[in-house]
Order: sequence, then C-alpha cells, then structure tokens
Amino acid sequence: MTDSYKIGIAGLGTVGAGVAKILQKNAELITARSGKKIEIVYVGARDKTKDRGVDLTSYEWVDNPLEMLDKGGIDCVVELMGGSEGIAYDLVKGALEKGISVVTANKALLAHHGYGLAQIAESNGAQLYYEAAVAGGIPIIKALREGFAANEVKALYGILNGTCNYILSVMRETGRSFDDVLKEAQDKGYAEADPAFDIEGTDASHKLALLAAIAYGVKPDLDNLPTSGVSRITATDIAYAEELGYRIKLLGIASRRGDKVMQIVEPCFVDKNAPIAAVENVFNAVFIDGDFVDTGMAIGHGAGEGPTASAVVADLIDLARGMSVPVFGIPVADVKDADWADVSSLKSGFYVRLEVLDKPGVLADISTIMRDHEISMEVVLQRGRNPDKPVTVVVKTHEATRAAIEKAGDALEAHEAIVETPSFIRISSL
Amino acid sequence: MTDSYKIGIAGLGTVGAGVAKILQKNAELITARSGKKIEIVYVGARDKTKDRGVDLTSYEWVDNPLEMLDKGGIDCVVELMGGSEGIAYDLVKGALEKGISVVTANKALLAHHGYGLAQIAESNGAQLYYEAAVAGGIPIIKALREGFAANEVKALYGILNGTCNYILSVMRETGRSFDDVLKEAQDKGYAEADPAFDIEGTDASHKLALLAAIAYGVKPDLDNLPTSGVSRITATDIAYAEELGYRIKLLGIASRRGDKVMQIVEPCFVDKNAPIAAVENVFNAVFIDGDFVDTGMAIGHGAGEGPTASAVVADLIDLARGMSVPVFGIPVADVKDADWADVSSLKSGFYVRLEVLDKPGVLADISTIMRDHEISMEVVLQRGRNPDKPVTVVVKTHEATRAAIEKAGDALEAHEAIVETPSFIRISSL
Repeated sequence: MTDSYKIGIAGLGTVGAGVAKILQKNAELITARSGKKIEIVYVGARDKTKDRGVDLTSYEWVDNPLEMLDKGGIDCVVELMGGSEGIAYDLVKGALEKGISVVTANKALLAHHGYGLAQIAESNGAQLYYEAAVAGGIPIIKALREGFAANEVKALYGILNGTCNYILSVMRETGRSFDDVLKEAQDKGYAEADPAFDIEGTDASHKLALLAAIAYGVKPDLDNLPTSGVSRITATDIAYAEELGYRIKLLGIASRRGDKVMQIVEPCFVDKNAPIAAVENVFNAVFIDGDFVDTGMAIGHGAGEGPTASAVVADLIDLARGMSVPVFGIPVADVKDADWADVSSLKSGFYVRLEVLDKPGVLADISTIMRDHEISMEVVLQRGRNPDKPVTVVVKTHEATRAAIEKAGDALEAHEAIVETPSFIRISSL
Repeated sequence: MTDSYKIGIAGLGTVGAGVAKILQKNAELITARSGKKIEIVYVGARDKTKDRGVDLTSYEWVDNPLEMLDKGGIDCVVELMGGSEGIAYDLVKGALEKGISVVTANKALLAHHGYGLAQIAESNGAQLYYEAAVAGGIPIIKALREGFAANEVKALYGILNGTCNYILSVMRETGRSFDDVLKEAQDKGYAEADPAFDIEGTDASHKLALLAAIAYGVKPDLDNLPTSGVSRITATDIAYAEELGYRIKLLGIASRRGDKVMQIVEPCFVDKNAPIAAVENVFNAVFIDGDFVDTGMAIGHGAGEGPTASAVVADLIDLARGMSVPVFGIPVADVKDADWADVSSLKSGFYVRLEVLDKPGVLADISTIMRDHEISMEVVLQRGRNPDKPVTVVVKTHEATRAAIEKAGDALEAHEAIVETPSFIRISSL
C-alpha cells in the first residue's frame, strides 16, 4: 500500500478549487511522481454551499481553518486565503509551530513575515514552500533556490504582474488610454475592482522582495524597495517609447552592486528588440544572470487557476518526496539584513515628458535646467505646436543619476511654462 | 563543523574544469545553500599535465577513473568523460552498484542505457542526476521532474542543439550557404571537427529521448525516434521560409496523441512571430504545454563551460541536500515501453522544394502528382526562368500526412524534369 501525504486546504477560491481539481484529475501520475498518495483530509472556506466546480464532499469541512491544527493528522496545510495578517498569518504560524509544513501562494504574507516564519519553520523542522506566490506558471522559486544554486546571481529582473503587462500591451497595440484599458481589464477579470494593488506596483514589489531575498540571501525588505506602478503611463508615453525604439514594461529588478544589493520596481523603457519586450499580455517573465550560467529566461502565466494551482501541487509533490529546502535557500541564521544600494546614485538614460506652454525660449530654458543638473540630452522632440494649449516635449537623456533627474524635475516643475509634474521613465540597459 | 559531501570528478575537459572552478569560487554560498561542504576528493582524466586553468593539486589524482570506486570514501561520482559505452558506462554502472550516486552530463549514455542504469540506481539506493545532459543553462530536467510535476504534459518541444541553431541563425542573417557557415562555426568552436553528431540531429535526439521519457514516464527509445538534421537546408530554403513568413528551426518534439506518444527531431518551419522563432544563435529553448500550467517556456545557453558546469553543481547541491527524485520522475518499475504514434499518419502543412528543368508542362505535372496523392497546394512559387539550368519551384501545401508527402516525393523524383531529390520541411503549428 502506498503511503499517503495528508493535507488540509484553507481557502477555496479559484486556486484552492484548482488544487483539488488537479489532485483528482491527475491523481495517478501524481502518486507515481511523488511516491505517495497526496490525500486531502480537510477543506475550509467562508461559504460551504458555494459551487466550486469540483466535488469536495469526501473531505472533512472545517468552518474555521484553524480547526485543522486542533484536529491534526495532516502533514501539510495549504494556505490559499490570502492577506498578510489575520487568519492566514495565524494559520501558517500555528501550523509551523506544530511542525506541520505549509504550502502557500500568499506573496503578501511572505514579503511581510517571511523571515519570522522561516525561523519558526526551521526551529520546528517544518517546510514552508511558496512556488505559487511568484509567477505561478514559472517555477522560478525552484530555479533560484535549486536550478541556479551554483551561481552568484549578478542580476535578476522580471515582469512580475500580469495585470500591468496586459494593460501596457493593449495600450501599445491600440493607442488607447490607461483608464480605458484598465476598465477593459477589469471587465475581463484581469484586474480587480480595486486595482491599486496591481497597478501601483505593490503586488510586483512583494514578488520581487521574495526573489531578491533568495537571490542574495537577505531578508525580504519592502521598506527599502522603491516602488512605482503604471498608473501615470499615458498613451503619449507609449507612442514616444515606440518612436524611440523601446517598449514600456513594469520591471522588478534586483542586482548586485559591489558589496551592496539594489532592488526596485518601476516602469522602464526596454529595447523593443530585447527578448523581454516580446513578453506581452498577461505573461510573466523572469531573467536571471548568474556568474556561471550566464543569462537564462523563463516565460509563463503569472496567475490564473491552472498555473497557480499547478505550482501549489508541485510544492506538495516536492514535500511528499521528502525534500527540504530552506525558505530563502540558506539556513535562516545565515539570512542577513541587506546593505541596500541607494538607487538615487545609479546612472541610466531617462525619458522625460514635459507638458509646456508653447512660448519662445521654453526649450532653451529646459536645456539650461538640464545642463545645470549635469544632464546631457540625446534627443529632444516637440512634435506639435499650439499657442492655446500645452504641447508635449519629450527628452531622452544620456546617462545621469536618478538624483540629478529628480532635482532637475523639481526645477522644471517650478518653471512657469511647464504645466504638469514632469514624467520620468528610466531607460533600462537590461 | 559542517558535514561534507565528497565527490570524485572523472573527465576534466571544459565542463570538468568548470565544475572545479565553481566549487572553488562559490564555495561559501554553495556550502550555505546545500548545508554541506561539497568536497572534491578525486579528479581524473587522460592527461595529468595539461593546464586546465584551475588548481587541482589539492585533490587526489587517479589515472583511471574506476580507481575512485576501489578507493571509496565518496558520496558521488561526477562523470564528464562522455561516450555511451566503455569507461563512462563502466564507471557510472560501477558507482551505482556500490550505492554511490552519479551526476553526469552524458546524454548519449543516458539515452542508450538510462533505463538499465535507473534500475541499478534504484535497487542500490543511489541517485542518478543529469541536469547538465539537456540544455545546461536551462534547468529543464528539474522543471519536468519537479516544477511541472502536477501536470500531464500535452506537448513539449525545443531547440536542443546550439550548433544547429547557430548555423541556421547565421544563414538567415547573412544569406550564406550551410557549408560556409558550418566552417565558421567550427573555427569559432561552436561545432566539432566532425560535425555529424550535431548537424544530423543525433545530439538533439539524445536530449529529446530523455525529455520524452520524463514527460511520459517511458523508456528513452532512440530506435523509435525519427531524426533528421539540418545538413540539407540550403540558403534557398531559408530565403523562401522568410518570404512565406517562417523561420527554420531544428526542433525536438514530443506530444501525447490519444493513448500514444509521438516523438521526432526534425527541422521545421515555425511562424516568424512565434516566441520560438526569436530564439537565435547558440541559445536553446524548451516549451512545455501542461494540462494545468498551460504554456511555459525557458531559454538559456545549451552548452559551454559555465552553463553546463552550473547544472552539474546544481545537481550536487540537490544531492547534498538529500534530495532523491527517480531518474525518469517515477519509480523505474512504473516506466513502460511507450506505444509510439506513427509520425507518418500525422498531418501538417509542408514546404516542398523542387529543382526542375524549366520546360512547358512541368508545373502541370507537379500539380497532377500532388493531386493524385491528395495533397492540395496553398502556394506555388517559381521565381526564376532559365532554359539552360534547373530552376527552383517551391510549394507550400495545405495539411497532408507525412506518408502522402513522402509518396508524392517518390513520384516527383521519378519525373524526368525533376533533377534532385525533392526537399520537404514540415510546417509546425506549434
């Protein structure tokens, strides 16, 4: 008789239901691959009566997921409720304290509390796996903790939020406005009713914080992760990006800078011929640059029932096989506070968009302000002329520090003929 | 004190030397990640005196790698000699019989003897890991055995030979001939002095046989793996591919066909806008289509010292961490002979190139022959006219079976005005 690996699933949204579907449909091959039957003992969610498209009647229902811990008899809790605090936190912490392993897709929980939870897991001999938390369709946690483990990571960067990538892709293809495309994404279910978590970069920052933690053996640190989203990107920005030979992507980037580590989430201009530019719509992608493996890249679905549930079940198979990889790839005692590089001192080219009143001398003033901040301009474009309304002036700079660009921005904004806060987008050399 | 995981390295070409370099340069992080110090005990190769760019003096030299087994005291043998028979086979088999794990980059050995070696490994409680055998820079063995383990694989396909991909890429960019570009690839070290192993598809077939074995839980089976390479691809083929909206890639493909499994290695036309078309030069790529994860793709270096050695060391870290995944992802007792689908009955569009004497009525005869074999033509192109020399006629067909195309080819070849064996390339819908 085959041993079984017993689990409880807390949270039965699309991902939780998807996990049950996979374990039912592919039961035979999963048992062969993991060497054990992965057996659902408990399921629990808010509403017992809801039809989830999968038969859950043979599992014991718990109204409160914490009951699973009291009842016991399971090897692993699958936490798919979400939220960085409250019951999700209590459940994960409680399970680990009892030596029960946890598989979760909860990036917010891990970005906020991953280090403390890793300590609890390790001291109780429990595993905490979270492949589904970052780019579900791409086994990137496994790649970083295992596949590329021989390498010092020089840099990693990725498109980590499918909602933003979808919006930027459709804006580029259609020339439509941000608000218009966001509305469509909401209608299609690619964006939440409250979209801020995605479009302001928060979701991507949670994921990047976890990838950076693994890559560099440091604590996830949202406080030192400069984050900006895509909500200020206009159709004009997209069109000028195209004209200048770029596409705009929301990137999460972590890289080694001497003894320090840099991390940031922000929209960037990327070369339109670069492989990352071809990653469109809801797809996610992660690039890793290692000291021996050189550059590798993976593309896949970042979210959705199937890909995310597939990642959850892969973790369960790993655990059923008896694997144990530390939460951040190294023993928690070795995980340090990072010495973060100050992004304001890093140099890049920048795209700058200004809305200006079309008066004589304005371009000369802009040039003077740029020069005064030691920023040299490679391209200046003023397409339209309109004495009655502001016109758009676009500047592509040579390499400059972000600090210089920001100071120049303040000076530009103070100019009487510049009518909006200047918009900056970094030109990524990645 | 940290435990150590003791290894012997057999074969000190670029990959073997690279493994030593990684273990020296990244010793600290590798120890942190694996939880043990990975310690080289023995090294051995043909020539002790050769400068390999790495200091090997602190390791015990063995002239004959088999000595490692007699001397003992190691957890793992790293076999990097190559060759499917002889000493590589003896060493791997001998180690596994003694319960010593093996890490190897030897695709030929595993494609030919992997099933038997898996039996020996399993019955002796030893591990046999081979991430470096297929697309070294892409952790694809890990992705298939672990990351996508929740899925039934609907299809996988990949660019598995960097030499062929380099030649096809340069031919397309420059319009140069196959022989000319092959010569350049040899000069650059991208192709061997005897290139047949790469350009005839043998290397790709070894890799595809291993991927298919894992994906479908079947024995690697080179005897039932139809294989053709790129040596018959001409500059004319490349140019017509471009004109028709395609690029030519040497693909390894395995897919589920009802109860059967299909596997093949052959050059294919792929849509020039498909992601796989953008994988150029020496890069490898593998796409996986799973029933839950949907489509995922990974790109990386297929060969070279750094990427291949990185994969070897990743395997060592896995083993030092105590992992154990069966050779083909499931217990060897469950690995079956596949029921292979007959590729001749599969339907595709085809590109057909004919060299014909430019006489009246030839195109009509070609059309008749095609019709007689139930092949309908979508495009017929005859660019040049030359009464003295053969001219090229290119046909793009609608969907037809390979069997029909081959029979039509025989009939076409028998035609007095057709002066060369017709050339066919399948148009992949992937």
